[in-house]
Amino acid sequence: MMEADVVVADRLAPRELLSELPSDVELIDVAKLPRGRSAQQEEINRVIVERALEGKLVVRFKGGDNFVFGRGYEEVLACREAGVPVTVIPGLTSPVAVPAVAGIPITHRGVAHEFTVISGHLPPGHPESLVNWGAVAGMSGTVVLMMAVHNAGAIAAALVDGGRPHSTPVAVVCDGTMPGERTVLSTLASLGRDIETEQVKAPAIIVVGGVVAVAHPQHFS
Amino acid sequence: MMEADVVVADRLAPRELLSELPSDVELIDVAKLPRGRSAQQEEINRVIVERALEGKLVVRFKGGDNFVFGRGYEEVLACREAGVPVTVIPGLTSPVAVPAVAGIPITHRGVAHEFTVISGHLPPGHPESLVNWGAVAGMSGTVVLMMAVHNAGAIAAALVDGGRPHSTPVAVVCDGTMPGERTVLSTLASLGRDIETEQVKAPAIIVVGGVVAVAHPQHFS
Repeated sequence: MMEADVVVADRLAPRELLSELPSDVELIDVAKLPRGRSAQQEEINRVIVERALEGKLVVRFKGGDNFVFGRGYEEVLACREAGVPVTVIPGLTSPVAVPAVAGIPITHRGVAHEFTVISGHLPPGHPESLVNWGAVAGMSGTVVLMMAVHNAGAIAAALVDGGRPHSTPVAVVCDGTMPGERTVLSTLASLGRDIETEQVKAPAIIVVGGVVAVAHPQHFS
Repeated sequence: MMEADVVVADRLAPRELLSELPSDVELIDVAKLPRGRSAQQEEINRVIVERALEGKLVVRFKGGDNFVFGRGYEEVLACREAGVPVTVIPGLTSPVAVPAVAGIPITHRGVAHEFTVISGHLPPGHPESLVNWGAVAGMSGTVVLMMAVHNAGAIAAALVDGGRPHSTPVAVVCDGTMPGERTVLSTLASLGRDIETEQVKAPAIIVVGGVVAVAHPQHFS
């Protein structure tokens, strides 16, 4: 980043690093672009491609994993279509890293040989949902739900309908890795209720499966 | 790591960093322990706990994501049982990061709202397998197979049996992020054959689903 001509910075990037940039670097702060997701994304793509075609080294500075329910690849495609070469430097994957920091392994020998990460921004049965919740229920491994606080009760019900036991352990990691991090333990049967009682707000990562009991044996014994 | 009293280093850790350690740090090289996975793991657990109980700050220095089919959590549990506090510092998750570096997004808007990461070290139908391949086939999202080179043909057949189309795009990323990185493009119908023809050897990460066609539209048009 210290070699960049232009840095295009995101709202969620670790912004304290920006103060270390040399003064001749052009800093474009995406958080200040006009609102509205699509317009904003098109504007970001345009800015990146435009500067790169001027021969400048552009660093797109984002927070988290932009290929997991982010729009990172849309920016890669925009560059590729314009003939701009791109190098991707990956970041931490929050659905794995946040449980790890909270003491919950996403896989564990003899408990889970697989894990599934799902965006829960649409409820089961929503016409635009691409998720087959019945198939998810039929898997034996860990399920990690992102952006699912609002729909957690409906998703838990769909997993039980699909055959997962009511007693399946669930952990809701709220504000993961932040000073206010806390974990709410629950089960599929009581998830919707517990989220309400505990006043869980986004951002939260919800882990479903036996690994939660491995991490919290007293609670689930 | 510069504040450690003891560093317990793994074979896969970025070992060049070890040369920067102060000379009074005790370096324990796990790669030199006697072979045999279980005995070795018990010995690692014992060494970590023993040094920690002597009041020393122990850094367990590993490569990759140790909570994804690694044995990181077994070491956390050993510490916890001995009353030793542990802080986890997460690393990159290779099933997401390796495809990202190779130019394949693991999710993409309108294509996949979910992804599943599976250890393919056991073939479908193996008595010790915890994976319900029929349920995996029934999901619409991206499937990432790790440690699956040997069983890839059998796994592809199981996914087709479960209803995934023969033509489902597949990318095999070999030696990801290493100087010899290469990507072999295939489909579920021809995966087993292509792995043989292209002489794919571990380590490789296999990505199954529509995101592969997003990344390689010419190949799959």
